[in-house]
Parts: sequence; structure tokens; C-alpha cells
Amino acid sequence: MPLIDAERLLSDLQRLRAIGAQGPGVVRPAFSAADMEARQWLKRRYAEADLEATIDGVGNVLGRSRHPGKALLIGSHSDTQPTGGWLDGALGVIYALEVVRALKADDATRALPVDAVSFQDEESRFVGCLGSRSLTGTLTSEMEQAAVDSHGLTLADALREAGLANVPRVHLSSGRYAGFVEAHIEQGPHLEDAKLRIGVVTGIVGLRSIRFVFRGQQNHAGTTMMARRRDAATALYELAHRINLEFPKVAAERSVWTMGRLRVEPNATSIVPGYAELDLQFRDASNAPLDAFEAVVARLVSEMNARGGVTIEAIGTRTPIAPTLMDADLQAHIEAAAERNAPGKWQRMPSGAFHDAGIISACIPSAMLFIPSLGGISHDFAEDSREEDIVLGCQVLADAAASILIERNTNH
Amino acid sequence: MPLIDAERLLSDLQRLRAIGAQGPGVVRPAFSAADMEARQWLKRRYAEADLEATIDGVGNVLGRSRHPGKALLIGSHSDTQPTGGWLDGALGVIYALEVVRALKADDATRALPVDAVSFQDEESRFVGCLGSRSLTGTLTSEMEQAAVDSHGLTLADALREAGLANVPRVHLSSGRYAGFVEAHIEQGPHLEDAKLRIGVVTGIVGLRSIRFVFRGQQNHAGTTMMARRRDAATALYELAHRINLEFPKVAAERSVWTMGRLRVEPNATSIVPGYAELDLQFRDASNAPLDAFEAVVARLVSEMNARGGVTIEAIGTRTPIAPTLMDADLQAHIEAAAERNAPGKWQRMPSGAFHDAGIISACIPSAMLFIPSLGGISHDFAEDSREEDIVLGCQVLADAAASILIERNTNH
Repeated sequence: MPLIDAERLLSDLQRLRAIGAQGPGVVRPAFSAADMEARQWLKRRYAEADLEATIDGVGNVLGRSRHPGKALLIGSHSDTQPTGGWLDGALGVIYALEVVRALKADDATRALPVDAVSFQDEESRFVGCLGSRSLTGTLTSEMEQAAVDSHGLTLADALREAGLANVPRVHLSSGRYAGFVEAHIEQGPHLEDAKLRIGVVTGIVGLRSIRFVFRGQQNHAGTTMMARRRDAATALYELAHRINLEFPKVAAERSVWTMGRLRVEPNATSIVPGYAELDLQFRDASNAPLDAFEAVVARLVSEMNARGGVTIEAIGTRTPIAPTLMDADLQAHIEAAAERNAPGKWQRMPSGAFHDAGIISACIPSAMLFIPSLGGISHDFAEDSREEDIVLGCQVLADAAASILIERNTNH
Repeated sequence: MPLIDAERLLSDLQRLRAIGAQGPGVVRPAFSAADMEARQWLKRRYAEADLEATIDGVGNVLGRSRHPGKALLIGSHSDTQPTGGWLDGALGVIYALEVVRALKADDATRALPVDAVSFQDEESRFVGCLGSRSLTGTLTSEMEQAAVDSHGLTLADALREAGLANVPRVHLSSGRYAGFVEAHIEQGPHLEDAKLRIGVVTGIVGLRSIRFVFRGQQNHAGTTMMARRRDAATALYELAHRINLEFPKVAAERSVWTMGRLRVEPNATSIVPGYAELDLQFRDASNAPLDAFEAVVARLVSEMNARGGVTIEAIGTRTPIAPTLMDADLQAHIEAAAERNAPGKWQRMPSGAFHDAGIISACIPSAMLFIPSLGGISHDFAEDSREEDIVLGCQVLADAAASILIERNTNH
């Protein structure tokens, strides 16, 4: 079993953390100066680990093994949320680097081919999972042309500013790979609550979202009688509350739904609002509850529209993400490695958050490994994990990688 | 009966409209350069009409008659909403000027004392009805110190910038006045719907408001299970919708309530909100329904707080405004003048909007006169009234003013 170097792992995690650090957190959104600096640093680190290192035309950092045979792709993303935590995708990125180095240091695993990757813009500054979409050839020019960040900067301008406008884009040749493994912090409280140290991901939940647009009539809040009003906010409150009453009746055990973003115009205490928007997002590991939620929404919207007054339009705001199952055989290798390194301290679990593995799995068998998040906190400067869990997760990953590659390359 | 000069009235309305004009609308918020320019222009106009004209330390423009006897105060406000209509308070301000001129031009009314006024900041940039509060001595230093506009500018700085920091403030000596009359556009659709041309205001509705603050826990929208969530927005939707279901059961015929302003933090599609605010405002011409609404709110909030999870705090956001009755005798004079000038084309009605007359009435008998608003639209660039209604309203006001003053000064 290849042994990782805990000190080297933690030291590289801290070096990456320093690029864009703000207090305990990290501000390294995709294509920012800090993000590009981190990618250049990572490319040098890949080269030092004897990988053939490139940054491609959308900013993916790819380190290719020079060894023959079926390769394993390992990695995650090094971009962060606008105010992000230090681990998030960075953990899986440095894990990949450390696994490459650990395998290289062991005679039994030296020749096993591992490619390392840091995807670009997993965190949706322009396009969620931009990098993995581009690598798998599923980034459409439509998505690209519509991509604008919250300050109005286009993706095309961001690519130009980052010096990537004329850099070739890499597409993965799926024939090269035995699989893809992404390690990540859990970003939720389940492992911590269960006092477990490793999560083996069974699947990534599907996600759909709907934007409701409410159109009424803006009016004076003193002189417009209730019967004459077409109050966009009143319709919003009713629809949102009724969704919260109806969804539990058709939800599965781990279904979640959120109405966390809204807008009311003109948003003044003394004015009856004439316009409002509400975003509804819902997730589950299987399609049935997602379909049931859509049916509830359609029924409520059509019932409220039939009444007249405010009109409600329901718009799907993004391509729905289908629930994705992780590869059973890769999972079995990770489970065995977890049991060897932390007997009884791991569990199977779905991922409630979306990850690049959800994109890559469409063309390469994929798997994921979680380590616990302290307090379940993530996407926040306070995000953290216990050092011993960080080290354990990397050891499990190195062990699983070796076992996957030995099996795949022996069978050939 | 004194006769107004329609051309002079309309021409002065257009001259005032030009100061701060933007398209068909007017942008002349209190203490802005346009507002102060309008006040200087108005002061000159008052002086030309032989009034003793001053701008006081909060920006009120006051034109005092030089004639002895019980005076009638007439006027409204010349400040506007951030994107205001051209009539709103400006109508009543120019009416006062024209009534002064009309009475002066008629031998029978030449010596009757009419004071004209344009109050400052009726539209709440800093303090709603700042000017009339100051004139009646009900502006407290607490209110003044807390007064900040939506950009963070303090009232003290605005006064300094307008050159008013060391200008004396005028207080009305109530003994001087037989009454106060304010003319205004209706800002609602009732007169137009009823095909009437004059409204004689019976009272100004009372207004109370409550700000709800919802405190929960911000979390990831994918990894936080429904049972663990403390979603501030979910509680907001429930409370708002239940208020809309419960209030009609205790409302009076013309009660209105509005929840037009809210805030959800961090207002992102993929984040469970940890904090939210909602403003509830309710109005009625008598206190009983307002008390009943407060009882409903207290019951719903205490019931939801008892459940745990999100906590709701209910904060009264402004001094409640009690319903105000207009003076019966002044109303009778206006009704008689309306019947003389537009037989059968007027009605008694409450004012759903608040006005300076609601402040002044606490120390001087007050009355109000409305003219129709086209489509009931107000606080909007599209605000407008028919020219013949604008002229008629001023003629009714001049007639009523003469009749009030003749009666009052004959009886003494």
C-alpha cells in the first residue's frame, strides 16, 4: 500500500490556501488574479511530480502521467466561492498531487498512471463546472455566449484578461481512463453527526430549478383598496407557503427544496408591488420526487393563474441536472480502502451538493470520497476539517487508486 | 365669489414642474438642488403676490398675509418622491398662491388674510412630514438625530448643504389661524370611477407598521436536510401568507394592509437563508380594525415562535399615526363651494394616503380637497389629472377660502 506524506500534503494545502487568503478563508474566484496564480503554481507542482503539465484554454490544469496503461484521473477544482473556505475543491486538488507522489515513491505502484486535474469555475462564476464541461465536450457555445458574472463581465473577456483567449482547449479521451475519483469535504453534517471519518459517495443528487415571475400592478399602499389590488408579493407569499405545505407530501427521505432568492419591485413599505421573482430549487437522488415536485408546482401555478389578478410565469432557469450514480466497482475499491485504513469508521452516502464528478461521470466511470466538515459548514470563511481526517482521506484515496489501477492494468 | 385665473394657475404649475423635470415626471426630493431652487422660486412668487415670504430653518416656504384678522393657511408640499409625479403636492402649493392672487383681485375679498405654505419633506426622504412637524413643534430631536436618507446622508448634513443650518425655524401660532386647507390629487381611483370631480375629505386614515425580523441559520441548499433547517425565508412566507388569510376576517370596509418591502440574506438560489426582514403596514380610518390587526399579528408570531426553529421579532417601525377627522365646519364650506361650482359632481371621502393636514390638524382645524387622478396613478412619472379638473379644484378652493374667512372675520 502506497503511503502518503502527511507533512508534504498539509504543507501544499497551506501553500495553496495562501494564494488569495483572507483571514481563515480564501477569495479565489475563477479567472481572478489569485485563481490564475494558483493554477500556475499548481502546474509547476505537477511538473515537479513528473507529470506532463498544461493549462488549457478554459483554465483547467491537467497533469498527465507519462506511464502507459489505463490511467486514473484524480482531482477537483481550485477556484472558490466569492468568499470561500480553504478546503472545498482545494482538498481534492492537492490530494491528487499527493497521490501521484505517493505512488511514485513506492516500487509496487511507481509505474501506475495517474493524471491530476484542477477543473475551472466549478463554483459558477460564469458557468457551473465550466472546466469539466469543456473537458467532456458538453460546454455549448450557447452556454458560453450567455456566460456573464454578477458584475456584468463576460466569460470571453475574462478568458482574454487571463491570457487564455488563444490557448487550445483539451478534451478528455475517455479510452485513456479506468475512471475518475474526486475527493471533497462533505459540506454537510452527516459524517460528523455519525462520528464517521470517510464517506463513500453512492450518487450525486439531481437538481432542478424554477424561476417564478409574478406580474401585477404597482399602486399606492394607502389609496388602493384590497379588492382592486394585483399585488405581486401577495401572490409570491401564497405560492411559496403552499409549496412548503405540499412538497413534504410527495418528498423522498432526503429530498430538499429551497426558495432562497427573491426580488420584489419596487420593494418599498408604502407601495403595492407590481412585480416579483422567486427562485425554487429542488434536489433528490432519484427522478421520481423531482417529477412529483414539478407536478405540484404546475398545479399550484395553474390554480392561482385561473383566479386572475397577478399572473405567474414559471421558467426553468437552468438545464436540469439528472441524478447520477457513482460507479459501483470504483466505490467497492474505495470502501475496501476505507475499511483497511479506518475500520468501521466510514459509510456510503449520497452527495447533496453538485460536483465535477457529476459531469465527468457521463463519459468516464466516476466515484467520490468525502471527509467530514466541522459543523457541516462550507462556502464560508469558517469552513474547516480536522487535520487527522484530512490526512486519512488522502491515504484512503492513495490506497484505493493503487488498488483500482493494479486491478485494471493486470486484467489487460 | 373670487375668480381664479386659469391660465396663470396652469402656467405656474408648469414652471414649478420644469424645476427637476425628467420626461413627464419630476425628481425633486427634499433638500436636493432642484428642491431648494423650487423653494427660492416659490418665495419670489409669494413676495410678488404681496406676501411676507421666508424659507425657514427646515426648508418650509411660508408666505404671510399682511392683512389683520383670523387667517387661513393654505398649501401642501413641493418636494417629490425620488421618481415623482408632477402634481402630487405641487398642485396644492400653486393653488395656495393662486387663491391669494384671486382674493387680492376681488374687492370683496381683497383684505382677507390668507397665508401660503410649502412644507418640506412630506415624502419622507429624512422624516415624513418634516416641515409640518417642525411648524407644529412636534419634531423631536430624537427623530431628527435618527434621520438618514437611503444613501446614508444625515438630515443635519442635508440642512448644512442646503445652507439652512443656522436659519431660524418657524413655529405656527395657532391663535392666528381660522384653519388650514390642503388641496391634493386623490392618488387613487375613486373619484374617476364614480365620475366625480371633487372629493371633500372627511378624515385621514391612521397608519401603523411593523417590521418582522426572522433569524434562522444560513446553510448549504444541497447538504442541509429539511428537518435540520432554520430557514428564515420559509418563516417569512408562512407569516405573510397567514396574515393575508387572517386580516380580511377582522378588516373594516376600507382597511388596507401591505407587505411591500422585504429582505432575504444572502438572497442566493443555492443557500438556505439565515436572516430575513418583512415590513407590514396597515391603515384604516378608525382604530378598531388597526387594534384587531395587531392582535392577529401577535397571535401568529407567538404561535410560530413557540414552534422553535426560526425566531421572529416584531418591531414597530414608526410612531403610529392615529386616524384624524377633518374639521366639520371647514368641510361644510368646501362642500358648499363644490356644489356651487360643480353641482352633484363631488363627494365626501376619507384619504387613504397620509398628508401634512394630518399633522397640522393637531393644532389648527384642518380640511382637505381632492381632485381626480387619471387612472388613480400617483408617485409615478405617469401621474396626471385632467386640466379642467385642475382648474375646477382651484376655483372651489378659492370660493371656500373666501367663504370661510368672511364667516370667521364677520363673527369676530
